[in-house]
Amino acid sequence: MAKPLRLHPERLFPSDPAVRAVASRLYAEIRDLPIISPHGHTDPAWFAENGAWTDPTSLLLAPDHYIYRMLYSQGIPLEKLGVPSRKGPSGADPREAWRLFASHFHLFRGTPSSMWLNHVFGEVFGFTQGLTAETADEYYDGIATALATPAFRPRALFDRFRIALLATTEGAVDELSYHRSMRAEGWHGNVVTTYRPDSVVDPEHEEFATALARFGEMTGEDVESWDGYLCAHRKRRADFMAMGATASDHGHPTAATADLSRPAVEALFAKVVSGKADAAEAELFRAQMLTEMARMSLDDGLVMQIHPGSFRNHNPQLFAAYGRDKGADIPRPTDFVHALRPLLGAHGNDPRLSIILFTLDETVYARELAPLAGHYPCLTLGPAWWFHDSPEGMRRFREQVTETAGFYNTAGFNDDTRAFLSIPARHDVARRVDCTFLARLVTEQRLDEDEAAELAFDLTWTLPRRAYRLNNLAADPRG
Amino acid sequence: MAKPLRLHPERLFPSDPAVRAVASRLYAEIRDLPIISPHGHTDPAWFAENGAWTDPTSLLLAPDHYIYRMLYSQGIPLEKLGVPSRKGPSGADPREAWRLFASHFHLFRGTPSSMWLNHVFGEVFGFTQGLTAETADEYYDGIATALATPAFRPRALFDRFRIALLATTEGAVDELSYHRSMRAEGWHGNVVTTYRPDSVVDPEHEEFATALARFGEMTGEDVESWDGYLCAHRKRRADFMAMGATASDHGHPTAATADLSRPAVEALFAKVVSGKADAAEAELFRAQMLTEMARMSLDDGLVMQIHPGSFRNHNPQLFAAYGRDKGADIPRPTDFVHALRPLLGAHGNDPRLSIILFTLDETVYARELAPLAGHYPCLTLGPAWWFHDSPEGMRRFREQVTETAGFYNTAGFNDDTRAFLSIPARHDVARRVDCTFLARLVTEQRLDEDEAAELAFDLTWTLPRRAYRLNNLAADPRG
Amino acid sequence: MAKPLRLHPERLFPSDPAVRAVASRLYAEIRDLPIISPHGHTDPAWFAENGAWTDPTSLLLAPDHYIYRMLYSQGIPLEKLGVPSRKGPSGADPREAWRLFASHFHLFRGTPSSMWLNHVFGEVFGFTQGLTAETADEYYDGIATALATPAFRPRALFDRFRIALLATTEGAVDELSYHRSMRAEGWHGNVVTTYRPDSVVDPEHEEFATALARFGEMTGEDVESWDGYLCAHRKRRADFMAMGATASDHGHPTAATADLSRPAVEALFAKVVSGKADAAEAELFRAQMLTEMARMSLDDGLVMQIHPGSFRNHNPQLFAAYGRDKGADIPRPTDFVHALRPLLGAHGNDPRLSIILFTLDETVYARELAPLAGHYPCLTLGPAWWFHDSPEGMRRFREQVTETAGFYNTAGFNDDTRAFLSIPARHDVARRVDCTFLARLVTEQRLDEDEAAELAFDLTWTLPRRAYRLNNLAADPRG
Repeated sequence: MAKPLRLHPERLFPSDPAVRAVASRLYAEIRDLPIISPHGHTDPAWFAENGAWTDPTSLLLAPDHYIYRMLYSQGIPLEKLGVPSRKGPSGADPREAWRLFASHFHLFRGTPSSMWLNHVFGEVFGFTQGLTAETADEYYDGIATALATPAFRPRALFDRFRIALLATTEGAVDELSYHRSMRAEGWHGNVVTTYRPDSVVDPEHEEFATALARFGEMTGEDVESWDGYLCAHRKRRADFMAMGATASDHGHPTAATADLSRPAVEALFAKVVSGKADAAEAELFRAQMLTEMARMSLDDGLVMQIHPGSFRNHNPQLFAAYGRDKGADIPRPTDFVHALRPLLGAHGNDPRLSIILFTLDETVYARELAPLAGHYPCLTLGPAWWFHDSPEGMRRFREQVTETAGFYNTAGFNDDTRAFLSIPARHDVARRVDCTFLARLVTEQRLDEDEAAELAFDLTWTLPRRAYRLNNLAADPRG
Repeated sequence: MAKPLRLHPERLFPSDPAVRAVASRLYAEIRDLPIISPHGHTDPAWFAENGAWTDPTSLLLAPDHYIYRMLYSQGIPLEKLGVPSRKGPSGADPREAWRLFASHFHLFRGTPSSMWLNHVFGEVFGFTQGLTAETADEYYDGIATALATPAFRPRALFDRFRIALLATTEGAVDELSYHRSMRAEGWHGNVVTTYRPDSVVDPEHEEFATALARFGEMTGEDVESWDGYLCAHRKRRADFMAMGATASDHGHPTAATADLSRPAVEALFAKVVSGKADAAEAELFRAQMLTEMARMSLDDGLVMQIHPGSFRNHNPQLFAAYGRDKGADIPRPTDFVHALRPLLGAHGNDPRLSIILFTLDETVYARELAPLAGHYPCLTLGPAWWFHDSPEGMRRFREQVTETAGFYNTAGFNDDTRAFLSIPARHDVARRVDCTFLARLVTEQRLDEDEAAELAFDLTWTLPRRAYRLNNLAADPRG
Repeated sequence: MAKPLRLHPERLFPSDPAVRAVASRLYAEIRDLPIISPHGHTDPAWFAENGAWTDPTSLLLAPDHYIYRMLYSQGIPLEKLGVPSRKGPSGADPREAWRLFASHFHLFRGTPSSMWLNHVFGEVFGFTQGLTAETADEYYDGIATALATPAFRPRALFDRFRIALLATTEGAVDELSYHRSMRAEGWHGNVVTTYRPDSVVDPEHEEFATALARFGEMTGEDVESWDGYLCAHRKRRADFMAMGATASDHGHPTAATADLSRPAVEALFAKVVSGKADAAEAELFRAQMLTEMARMSLDDGLVMQIHPGSFRNHNPQLFAAYGRDKGADIPRPTDFVHALRPLLGAHGNDPRLSIILFTLDETVYARELAPLAGHYPCLTLGPAWWFHDSPEGMRRFREQVTETAGFYNTAGFNDDTRAFLSIPARHDVARRVDCTFLARLVTEQRLDEDEAAELAFDLTWTLPRRAYRLNNLAADPRG
């Protein structure tokens, strides 16, 4: 049964008329601000090559673990959804996969995925009927047709989406060729990279040995010596900065940091390089490397992002068949108070250092992160992350963080997505939720409306620009 | 001072008129649906024997640890409330106990107990004045008089409450005689049992040795051999299924699972049987048995319920004097991510397996349970449980679970109660809270009202029917 | 840019007109009740000597770690804010420090600090323009002028604030001279002390050895013998009770309790006294001492307050330069279920014992504290504490505690502050938030308005009076 697709202009605002009115006024002032996307996982090849995407399944469904994890949880095999496995591409017919998705779209009721998708369907592609089993083919054909037109090429959408800056994330041994070619070509799009050295920092990463060898080749350093290894990082950080990077990113299982003596770290590194580090030593090495990265940041100015707390590849059968990043990463409790102390004890008061913290464990918002960020000059809180990048999740973040850390120790929104078409939707949701939170404070006389308006702008523009040191962006794009 | 007892027709709905209007409309459509009660602790003897209850104290006060724990916390001795001790029945005069309860009824302001009780007082017994010291005797006499009439016998209330299915819970060595007699007699009430093998699975259970011996006698198996022990479980599961069981239930201290090798498990079992297992081995044995139960479920189709996280009998003096289940069980932090991995790693992708998870630790809703249930096909989330079976608790459950797991990875409501008369009240509260949550999504334009109406029905009927595999219930009871 | 300072009469109440109306009515009845402040850290010298404060920086900014921690987190050095260091008083010009604070006042938007400060500015000092860079000097001069007048002396403000009782907190070796002189003088202000023995109970306290020696001198006991040490506590508790104390206070890193055998505790004490206790032994000793203090309470009737869960002095560089209590204490996860069991197992059912529990870890509200307080007769829950003493924090406390523990197992509000001028503001915020919570229950028909009105009074007056055994206060001050 077909049904209208409605994107209500005041969606996500509370029902109470007074709050809704304030939220609407605040939102109207920031709705059209350009997007700053300082942390994400889009493919730089899209912008470098500007090729056409082919069909909705390969663009929207098969690469998006938010979507197929829900379908999988209800018994739909991944192979039917076009998801590639370790054996290669899926044999599923893309149209059949899309139909299967469409007929189960009700599973997403109440989830941010449904909001983001409906935004993409309505705003990006112009559909006016909702996605259902009945409209599956209409959607499939309509999207495929649109994608074949110039207006739906990556660069055209980049401009249409009014993206002021987009950061991708590349590993330590990435050639950065797409970034290089974009810059060589002189395309006006402001796409930068981010230094993500996990594969050469985490002894338990499945590619550690090969990545380390390549790390040495690329930098000409003896990466089996501690000094050479650190030098290699410094060189690659410089390479990334040449491609616009202003930040590094660290996706460790925990937030542990360490500050070992030189002999201790050299002994540890020798074990790591020899492949003999056990789990505790691997953890200690990752911990030490966060402090080393902080020290490099003191010199080169890269902002550190720490993204801890995911139990990766929790489903061993799925991992064996499909590999990484297939929706089977599960958050776990994450300590910050003890974990960060070695790093903070060494460098936490240095105004040159800037660290943005993320968490998948919401219990630390009020208990640990807000008190830490409300004290240490180097700390800023990243937005509600991953599973918590949602209206309720973002509300909990603001409610639990603001009273201790204020607004100005937070970094504004980032979308952290590989789903390029959803970027405007995600930023729009974040703007609406922030305006709702501010509107509540205004109507409860906890904030004046002019202060709230200033904050709405700051949360959208000033804070991400400052947190990520995006000095090439205007302080105020409103002109 | 007597005061009117008011059960406002729109109670529990938010004040905002728009939300309240939507909630009222949604609720009106599901208010009168029959009750599915797939997990609880009522006494099957009530329905098998259909005897009259005698007085309000022995029916409503003395057996309900929700109520007397609150009174005890304010200094009222249990012996004055009619609660039996290890020495035998309480010597308290039932009417005096009731008066004591009535004069402290204000302690329950703001608690679900007061809502449930007022529902029982108003809807089941027809009182129009609230319970106070002044009305204590009127209540006592009114209830006692009603209980003596046929309309207040268990079966009459069962019909009056429109219960489509009621599951009780029996231990592994229960004779199931009441269930047997109900079935032999051919009573139309749909009362089924549930297999709860804790006493023969938990080496630390105070009745383990005697229960294990009885387990062998009942099944004719050599339960001191690992194979015989497993066979005994299989036989008893079949016995329970013959009495309507569609589920097993496991009340372990933690959610730990294990998947040991055959030699390891046989060695462990030998220690357990010999009574020499230490605390860690007892924990490991319980963990292994969850995986064994999952394997049996793959064969016989029983749904598994896991109810972990209670520190039982926290008050040693009270336990010594009064025994188990006297309101001194306290929740504790519960890990699911690491705990469930052995079981999920072995069988988590098997579509024949169905596991319903409960928790007393709300911090895992968003962090662990929703991400797990939003991925693994075998997992479903049970409703907010025990201390959290309350308006605020149920709201937190929906707010923290829905965005990642959706609605369709949840199991609907179950009341988990031994207080039979409160069953309609508890389901009514759950329906109201769910409709309120849905109404908020509707008024914030996050859901269309027709979708919300479908969800309200699914949460009340479709999901518990599916989660508990209640195939003998109609897919839609609305005719 | 100057802007009006508005203290809206209905601030903090929700926008919904029905809820706001009920909240306003409830609040109107309790707004002017005298203040009970049974736990705090004001300086008794103020009331004993009644000297004039000199300037806003030394009164409001330099001693308040809530304020300067936020400024520090944004890169402002403490030395510029007038905060004294280990080297002595700050060299900052007080007016310059105040200007710096004023120009960063926007950092506090959305925090309780801004609410408290605006209340002080508007209600206590009568400002009608908000604090900004432009009004900094006007504020500085206005406050300094006022402070020089008799109306702004401590005792005058004490009367103006309508404080029925104010408890300060003194260490075990404090002379209590200010309390003594107030009493000798016969001042009518009801200021009492509280026994805080951390420095002679915590072997890891930096002053432990010297404090223990002084403890022996003051009491004439051999505090190196276990019996003498306990006697010294008993004597000092009596000294404190003579200065009005009705409570002791214990700020341990964890809530651990222990109940060791006599030989075990004597062996432990010998190690502690000899300075050879390691970290685990220090923790065990603190744990044992909570149980010892409970035993003393059984005799002398002092109420115990347990304030666990702060990682003190998290920032080692700051601690080295500035010392304790400089905004670098960070909450950490806190267990109560296992921690309290030894004490509760020994004395938890004794009606003579009264323990008020506080936490910095909100995850325990619903999971541990409410179930414990809703069962054990000796337990009462203190209000949302420190970082959580805020509108959102107090709302979470009520929402997560009430359904299991009710209202009557809570202790009402206490301000826990050293900022004397903020006391009315803090109690006013608490009263508004409680009335808002109650109003929501009323408008959702979960509570009748007459019950809510009774509760509003009880939360403000009856419960703190009862919890702290303040028998010298009237049961109802409304006359």
